[in-house]
Amino acid sequence: MTLEQIGQRAKEAEPVLRVMDRKHKDQVLLCAAEYLIQDTAFILKANDLDMENGKKRGMKEGLLDRLKLTPERIEGMAEGLRQIAALSDPVGEIISEWTPENGLNIKRVRVPLGVIGIIYEARPNVTADAFGLCFKTGNPVVLRGGSDAVHSNKAIVEVLQKALESCGCPAYAIQLLEDTSRETAAAFMKLNQYIDVLIPRGSAGLIATVVNNSTIPVIETGSGNCHIYVDEDADLEMAVNIVYNAKTQRIGVCNACESLVVNRKIKDAFLPLLAQRLSEKKVELRGDEAAREAVPSMTEASEEDWGTEYLDYILSVKTVDTTEEAIGHINRYNTGHSEAIITENQEHAEKFLREVDAAAVYVNASTRFTDGFEFGFGAEIGISTQKLHARGPMGLEALTSYKYEIRGTGQTRG
Amino acid sequence: MTLEQIGQRAKEAEPVLRVMDRKHKDQVLLCAAEYLIQDTAFILKANDLDMENGKKRGMKEGLLDRLKLTPERIEGMAEGLRQIAALSDPVGEIISEWTPENGLNIKRVRVPLGVIGIIYEARPNVTADAFGLCFKTGNPVVLRGGSDAVHSNKAIVEVLQKALESCGCPAYAIQLLEDTSRETAAAFMKLNQYIDVLIPRGSAGLIATVVNNSTIPVIETGSGNCHIYVDEDADLEMAVNIVYNAKTQRIGVCNACESLVVNRKIKDAFLPLLAQRLSEKKVELRGDEAAREAVPSMTEASEEDWGTEYLDYILSVKTVDTTEEAIGHINRYNTGHSEAIITENQEHAEKFLREVDAAAVYVNASTRFTDGFEFGFGAEIGISTQKLHARGPMGLEALTSYKYEIRGTGQTRG
Repeated sequence: MTLEQIGQRAKEAEPVLRVMDRKHKDQVLLCAAEYLIQDTAFILKANDLDMENGKKRGMKEGLLDRLKLTPERIEGMAEGLRQIAALSDPVGEIISEWTPENGLNIKRVRVPLGVIGIIYEARPNVTADAFGLCFKTGNPVVLRGGSDAVHSNKAIVEVLQKALESCGCPAYAIQLLEDTSRETAAAFMKLNQYIDVLIPRGSAGLIATVVNNSTIPVIETGSGNCHIYVDEDADLEMAVNIVYNAKTQRIGVCNACESLVVNRKIKDAFLPLLAQRLSEKKVELRGDEAAREAVPSMTEASEEDWGTEYLDYILSVKTVDTTEEAIGHINRYNTGHSEAIITENQEHAEKFLREVDAAAVYVNASTRFTDGFEFGFGAEIGISTQKLHARGPMGLEALTSYKYEIRGTGQTRG
Repeated sequence: MTLEQIGQRAKEAEPVLRVMDRKHKDQVLLCAAEYLIQDTAFILKANDLDMENGKKRGMKEGLLDRLKLTPERIEGMAEGLRQIAALSDPVGEIISEWTPENGLNIKRVRVPLGVIGIIYEARPNVTADAFGLCFKTGNPVVLRGGSDAVHSNKAIVEVLQKALESCGCPAYAIQLLEDTSRETAAAFMKLNQYIDVLIPRGSAGLIATVVNNSTIPVIETGSGNCHIYVDEDADLEMAVNIVYNAKTQRIGVCNACESLVVNRKIKDAFLPLLAQRLSEKKVELRGDEAAREAVPSMTEASEEDWGTEYLDYILSVKTVDTTEEAIGHINRYNTGHSEAIITENQEHAEKFLREVDAAAVYVNASTRFTDGFEFGFGAEIGISTQKLHARGPMGLEALTSYKYEIRGTGQTRG
């Protein structure tokens, strides 16, 4: 099938999904969950092929683990769809309503975004998850997964399309680019006529490629070079706990802490305490000169360290004299994701909240909370690090737009 | 000055504007209005140069008129800034606030978008207007105007920068690319490091160039191929008035009606009435066969007519059998701008409102109302025809994003 045909089919599905009521959509999601369970053997067989190919090509253990499906993981995918069915439907919500001087009744009403393209890597569970979120919000989705997972993705999409048809829905509410070549991906990113929004999910490299090559509007879900600033008025025990949590609870995620900023006045009291605690997880500390005075075992940080998202048991340590200087450092090196201050000083806290430019700014809490589920959204399509459309954790609402419904009584413009 | 330097200066102005309070911003806007008035002679002299060059190059009357400045037009620019000062400031608004199970207090707070790039053509009044809207919302702006207006734009920007400095503001809250070459424009559209959003304002060609070449997120302000559907249950007198208004009140604007869709059951009663009324303005009608049966003087419409935004005294006429068919035709050919149905039938009206995919959908009113001032926004940066971020008339709110301010008491993630 050509890209053109895929685009046309998505556009044909669009008006059907746009006006589908919540009850029908939820039935389809529950039915899709059932089909995944029923067809577990079929999906696992396809996944075996991907796993074999991956091993032959010398894929690393970590990647193989992300690629692998098991009956439990497929049950997890099905459970994900059931949870999405249980969420309330943002489509149709009247966001606001007013009557200006011209006497028109204006309603701003939430509607689906349109056809959504999702470009991702070798995690087949994203296939079902992305479908669930897009379908719930009335958006047809076109998926471009990694070549490593192509057999698994094809099988999952085939099962979901069967489920859609059995419920009287257009099967093309979900489609997969089976051709995973770079050329096709490049052409896909310029399919403005059919695709309304592109969402890349994956590594920084993947996201940069999409941002630089797409002519379709992109929602950038990005990397997180997250800082925690321990202020002179911090509760040091709280600070140790929060930094330990944000650095080590899960190292490979975008909301993990990568850099510590510490006030000079407390560095000698705080850094040895922290170093001791982080030694439990063998975290490497890379500090500036003042930090290394407090903890001599620390290695020397280079300019490059301030801008690095390690995703590893490494933490950079920068010493500052004031909250102002901390904010300046963070605004220079952060990626607009999550930043925290630990302080009992109300004035410093408010200044930090106001002046730090990031999606989520915390006082006395771990950066690890930047997450759609922790925020109570019940779902997450990604964490936006751009300022247009959606910022921070994106739930169902981020997959909607709005339109104006205007009711008149014959008004003309004078 | 290099693009890099311009970008850096905008980024330096950004944190200052981000936290500037409303009172200070409004003082600056009023002061800028004063400076424009005081320096009228200086601006007019620069404009004379652009007008002379334009005449030499054989610029058309209409374009020369848009380029021309007069003391009245400069007073209009100043008055525009005063009006923006009087609007309420969306920045700092707490959009929502909640506490999920983890006990964190989460506030979603409105913040500026960042550095805004605006690319426009030969209308120097846009220079002051864009500055006013961006400054009010705390966003530094970098302008790239047309080469035809470069002297006028330079003079206006110089005056505004003087006003900014006199109020203790960074002058680089507004900057102009004085180099109006295509190469510099192309490089400007890839300045992702410094520019957060690009807004093109102008012709369809300009907008397409920006969409296709920018790697920075773009807010597309687009063309309007707007339809009015006159239903079988329409009040025909109302329909004549609304179509007459939407077609002829101002022909060169994006919310003018370009195409009439008419129900076959009333075409013989309605079309001759309409043709007579439109003859007052010598509107050319281009119809399908059924429409031409009702008004034999009508010329024949081609496939191309259905997709054309005439911006002229021309109206295409398509006959349909049902509301369903009207919606199908409109969703195929419209540009997502403004669409209307004229009907007394509630069911048809609701179906049309729900199923037509456009920024503004009207029942019994002229499409000409799609406008930030008519909507009561008090300002307008453009009319978005995309679904991401902002749709329809964009007021000050469209120039903002949000951040999450999160207050904890030591929470870590389990």
